[in-house]
Amino acid sequence: MTELTRRSMLTSAAALGAAAMTPINSEPAHASAPAANQQAPGFYRYKVGDYEITVVTDGANTRPLEDNYIINQKKEDVNAALAAAFMEKDKVTIRYSPIVVNTGSKLIVIDTGTGEANFERSKGAAGQFQKNLKAAGIDRNAVDMVVISHFHGDHVNGLLTADNKPAFPNAEILVPAPEWKFWMDDGEMSRASAGRMQDLFASNRRVFDALGRKVTPYEMGKEVAPGITAVATHGHSAGHTSHVIASGSGKVFVQADVTNLPQLFVRNPGWHASFDQDPKMAEEVRRKIYDMLAAEKMMVQGFHYPFPALAYVEKTSTGYREIPVPWSPTL
Amino acid sequence: MTELTRRSMLTSAAALGAAAMTPINSEPAHASAPAANQQAPGFYRYKVGDYEITVVTDGANTRPLEDNYIINQKKEDVNAALAAAFMEKDKVTIRYSPIVVNTGSKLIVIDTGTGEANFERSKGAAGQFQKNLKAAGIDRNAVDMVVISHFHGDHVNGLLTADNKPAFPNAEILVPAPEWKFWMDDGEMSRASAGRMQDLFASNRRVFDALGRKVTPYEMGKEVAPGITAVATHGHSAGHTSHVIASGSGKVFVQADVTNLPQLFVRNPGWHASFDQDPKMAEEVRRKIYDMLAAEKMMVQGFHYPFPALAYVEKTSTGYREIPVPWSPTL
Repeated sequence: MTELTRRSMLTSAAALGAAAMTPINSEPAHASAPAANQQAPGFYRYKVGDYEITVVTDGANTRPLEDNYIINQKKEDVNAALAAAFMEKDKVTIRYSPIVVNTGSKLIVIDTGTGEANFERSKGAAGQFQKNLKAAGIDRNAVDMVVISHFHGDHVNGLLTADNKPAFPNAEILVPAPEWKFWMDDGEMSRASAGRMQDLFASNRRVFDALGRKVTPYEMGKEVAPGITAVATHGHSAGHTSHVIASGSGKVFVQADVTNLPQLFVRNPGWHASFDQDPKMAEEVRRKIYDMLAAEKMMVQGFHYPFPALAYVEKTSTGYREIPVPWSPTL
Repeated sequence: MTELTRRSMLTSAAALGAAAMTPINSEPAHASAPAANQQAPGFYRYKVGDYEITVVTDGANTRPLEDNYIINQKKEDVNAALAAAFMEKDKVTIRYSPIVVNTGSKLIVIDTGTGEANFERSKGAAGQFQKNLKAAGIDRNAVDMVVISHFHGDHVNGLLTADNKPAFPNAEILVPAPEWKFWMDDGEMSRASAGRMQDLFASNRRVFDALGRKVTPYEMGKEVAPGITAVATHGHSAGHTSHVIASGSGKVFVQADVTNLPQLFVRNPGWHASFDQDPKMAEEVRRKIYDMLAAEKMMVQGFHYPFPALAYVEKTSTGYREIPVPWSPTL
């Protein structure tokens, strides 16, 4: 049928090195097109039953890998895990992906990113949430509710504009009741260790004071809105909370920070991050949730997963692996 | 330091089932926002040295899984592989991602998707290339060259508009010399088996006749443009060709159809697809290329990978696994 022979097959791997220098064309046919020099707007849509979910990235920050980034692991082991995931060693890129849920009657933002003030500070690397929200055609003034998972800067700082005004002026702000209780407790604050914990207390009070502390605390195990149920996943912080979004036969587990970047913490659920408030409880929760996700073949929306941050989970001999949901070019 | 106790940790997995029916709010704060009802435009940028690459999806088609889709494998094994990848059984979704390379002096399209005429036919599922190209800010009239990997409809049909005019009116069309020779050979056509091969001959001649057969055949192992080298990867078709794009210290292997969807053919390199012209040679090439990609830790741009279709490759005990390159929110 064909003239295909082994002869006609060039020894491909060898050819890669041999860069022949005989371009067919040496002059452009016409004026050269300018490079775009900017990334596509980072938003992605999918449906959960009747609900339309828009994942909107806030960007990413890259930081040097600190010696104690994983408190129960050697730096060289962390570097080995980064290398196994084809990531650069000695640095960690932390990504942020809040989501917007349109239930048909409510427009609900879950977590808010590092804040618009961070856009300039990070030279556009992060603080992109409002910019990408706009690209997605979502008006911040139309947002009915903002649901916060926990009180770390990359989740709450986006509640404010760059000049400390409410970023979602018409939205009710819902916060986990145990998280609110912990961070607003003056006794807890007085006992906080110097450094990160004291800074977090100060920063959280700055954010919520700017909002006049007008928030609605919500309870675990209850719906914060129709179809969106709060699930206690405390450990990463005192009142860290995840959410299950369910509509029709669709369901997704919005984990927030049950794991940080999956290449480290999904693969190695026993690793304790320096930023986990109670690392042992965080690990316990992580294993419980990931066993459930794997057993139920339930999709997970991971705040720190690579955009669009949506995956399935399988169990491996040493932990778990996230299987990214393929990008769908249609809704 | 904290009041965290095991008590405060809700038994999470159990709570997922217990959908408490006490939403905090029952009325929307204001008029409900309309759903967007459409996906984000599918384009994504990255740099290879000084070159700017834009991946532009043409969409995807979903078809029933045919009994002989894999000629040397049982349908149940294919379904098992789909299930392992969290994909639906008894159907196959084929995705298409052409790319655009801006070298600074030339704007080069590699492969063209299923064609604009297919947009309406597929109800918007595929034939999206020109639409997404426009969203990416790329003017079809500014394209200097179109480089074709091989003569299958999802790679060449996009050379024409819906009314059979040149889709890139100012571009030189470059085609692999052995592919051109094979499909334009009347003897080969007369010997083609009925069905798919005869249809392909007819379809290819329709496309290239509409272009007045004005093409520039290119040789294997040579540069088609500065930094873009043709690599013979014959087998999938008589003259199937891949390309290495190299600039500065950057390099990416643009594989075209060395594998189709990775969940089946990267994981199982020995599987022979019904659409491979010479399946044995295609497998040989696949193993050679994937051994090279894994050994050199070289990025692969896979036409049929899920958008943005960019990955690294690792070797496994039974084949290979693609590791998607995390989406970068900046260029």
